[in-house]
Amino acid sequence: MIPQEIFKSLCRSTDSKIVLLVLDGLGDIAAEGRTPLEAAATPNLDRLAREGTLGLSDPISPGITPGSGPAHISLFGYEPIKYQIGRGVLEASGIDFQLEPGDVAARGNFATADGEGRITDRRAGRISTEENQRLITALRSEIDEIEGVKVILETVKEHRFVVVFRGEGLDGRLAETDPQALGVKSLEPRPLAPEAERASAVVKAFISRAVEVLAPEKQANSFLLRGFATPPDLPPMSELFRLRPAALAAYPMYRGLARLVGMRILPTEETPAGSFAALASQWGENDFYFVHVKKTDSSGEDGDYASKLKVIEEVDRALPAVLELKPEVLVVTGDHSTPCRLKGHSWHPNPFLLYSANVLRDETTAFSERQCVRGGLGRFPAVEAMPLMLAHALKLDKFGA
Amino acid sequence: MIPQEIFKSLCRSTDSKIVLLVLDGLGDIAAEGRTPLEAAATPNLDRLAREGTLGLSDPISPGITPGSGPAHISLFGYEPIKYQIGRGVLEASGIDFQLEPGDVAARGNFATADGEGRITDRRAGRISTEENQRLITALRSEIDEIEGVKVILETVKEHRFVVVFRGEGLDGRLAETDPQALGVKSLEPRPLAPEAERASAVVKAFISRAVEVLAPEKQANSFLLRGFATPPDLPPMSELFRLRPAALAAYPMYRGLARLVGMRILPTEETPAGSFAALASQWGENDFYFVHVKKTDSSGEDGDYASKLKVIEEVDRALPAVLELKPEVLVVTGDHSTPCRLKGHSWHPNPFLLYSANVLRDETTAFSERQCVRGGLGRFPAVEAMPLMLAHALKLDKFGA
Repeated sequence: MIPQEIFKSLCRSTDSKIVLLVLDGLGDIAAEGRTPLEAAATPNLDRLAREGTLGLSDPISPGITPGSGPAHISLFGYEPIKYQIGRGVLEASGIDFQLEPGDVAARGNFATADGEGRITDRRAGRISTEENQRLITALRSEIDEIEGVKVILETVKEHRFVVVFRGEGLDGRLAETDPQALGVKSLEPRPLAPEAERASAVVKAFISRAVEVLAPEKQANSFLLRGFATPPDLPPMSELFRLRPAALAAYPMYRGLARLVGMRILPTEETPAGSFAALASQWGENDFYFVHVKKTDSSGEDGDYASKLKVIEEVDRALPAVLELKPEVLVVTGDHSTPCRLKGHSWHPNPFLLYSANVLRDETTAFSERQCVRGGLGRFPAVEAMPLMLAHALKLDKFGA
Repeated sequence: MIPQEIFKSLCRSTDSKIVLLVLDGLGDIAAEGRTPLEAAATPNLDRLAREGTLGLSDPISPGITPGSGPAHISLFGYEPIKYQIGRGVLEASGIDFQLEPGDVAARGNFATADGEGRITDRRAGRISTEENQRLITALRSEIDEIEGVKVILETVKEHRFVVVFRGEGLDGRLAETDPQALGVKSLEPRPLAPEAERASAVVKAFISRAVEVLAPEKQANSFLLRGFATPPDLPPMSELFRLRPAALAAYPMYRGLARLVGMRILPTEETPAGSFAALASQWGENDFYFVHVKKTDSSGEDGDYASKLKVIEEVDRALPAVLELKPEVLVVTGDHSTPCRLKGHSWHPNPFLLYSANVLRDETTAFSERQCVRGGLGRFPAVEAMPLMLAHALKLDKFGA
């Protein structure tokens, strides 16, 4: 990718519209036989492949399996190594919590400790979400502020919660307090950089106050904090690419990621048909629409080939609703692969389809991993997807004279 | 490739095993007709191509012809520009001499000089190896140490020898003493950096002592030194990749290169069948095995098409012995191409075959340069081979959340 400052100078605002449809975890491997994308009946996607162009994109670089954060950030045109997103920030995004610049967020686990503070259960017996809510309410009523820093607590699910410290001069470079072992005390939130000393002192004071509040509890009388992080300083897409971007994502983590790059969050539904209808009903004000379909990924995580195939067919059936909007550019791709065989994210490159009147057509005839191998876009890092989308939407000026 | 520190944090030690089989100089061009790899009968490699995936790797970057050092170093996962290996170091490796950190090694040529020290033969009439050994013995008995620096002399072959300076505060940035012309005196080993002044003085003193010792000789009364170098500070593979690597290489230079990255050196034989048998008999303790076959390269250097084809067929016939070991990942590739037409190393990319249960199969049906063009791995820098091997062996954690 060319240097950000030069790229920025080439971007121009136009009326043309881009749709980036991310089928999360789309790519698969199917060592023998066909992948879900190959086996699914996808007449619409196949037509787009014939009239558009295909390729394979590496989320980060060959062999590297990305988390959802870096996988999406690179699709949005941000170098995933330069802009790293900490776990605490992602967890807060995952419950739609709107972080502010300078916040320090961490993931929390309620835990059980013995009389001497030694951890006996790192998940407090996986207490119910309702129990978690009761504890968070109790903590909130007792702790509001520590040394002038606002403390915000939010239930996630079961034993998991998020804590956000909001105040001046905080730095998220703190060591986790989880000893990752039983029979030992939780660790101190040590500063990992001199700038994080104040944050360390605040978190330490918070922990000791909170443990007092939890003292009467049987199961959840302690907790562990991990993944301290400050929201990355991501220049918004409006500034970097001169776009007016919007996101339709039914899952909070993806809304959170979209929010981090300055997208407007639009209401949507979980099904492909529902989200495409939501796109159609809100079409017009923005010029970049990120539409996220989660279920390809969750099917892959479950190793459920049939379900993954079915979601792809659902997307295909519903796709005419998107095509009727006549976006100047439509990209259909994954953020990372989630092969059913591996039941998790993988390093395999993403099938990538780009449909636009300005495309150099290739000889591919269907949208599949193997046809993408011989697609006209070749194999490229996912961070190049943004220049490709902007170019095909005629939103980029010439470089040099 | 992602930054080394991040990559390092993703590596994990597992029981899965990787075999990297390097057929030195494998790639060829055969402008008309077929390359040796295309013409050879290789049923086993072709099956692996069908069940695995192919690609093309550039040893350094397009158009750059590498020496054996950078070509192997990049296959081992080290940036070849960052970790340069001087000629003196390679020459020492080539005779199995074990360099220590801080040593300065150089290649030496015995030469003939006239009464006024002007070089009249830069190779001393290509004296025999026995003659060389006699001269080295004479020099050793007279020169052991210069200014507290140990001087170690080793015969290589014919007129060639290696000299190693071992002591405190030496720096290998010295100009060669070879004037690359006849009728002129040899040059001074000038320091090319201020830090190399001590080394320069030591080498200068060594040269004048050695020339005194050689004065009675008729042919080899002088010598020229080239390629002064210090062993590069290569972090071992165990540290960078959490591997327990081993090498089976019949030629000393490749053992030397393997040693530089911390591989354990296992006894082996020169033929493909012999080296695969050696691999089988020592299988188990390590999780990364580099197996080197030299004769593809030497056949290419000789322009001997038939011999190159025959070696490839020998490898293919013997390959079942490797497959029976069931490594989780098997890569078959070259370090660089050595086209018979060019009789030397070239810049052409390496045919690359990756076989693993976790592969995204492509549509290729045989292992050949031209099928590699349309392989699923695309075209990539050879330094990415290591992330790809580690990923397919499930030895890499996810990057980011």
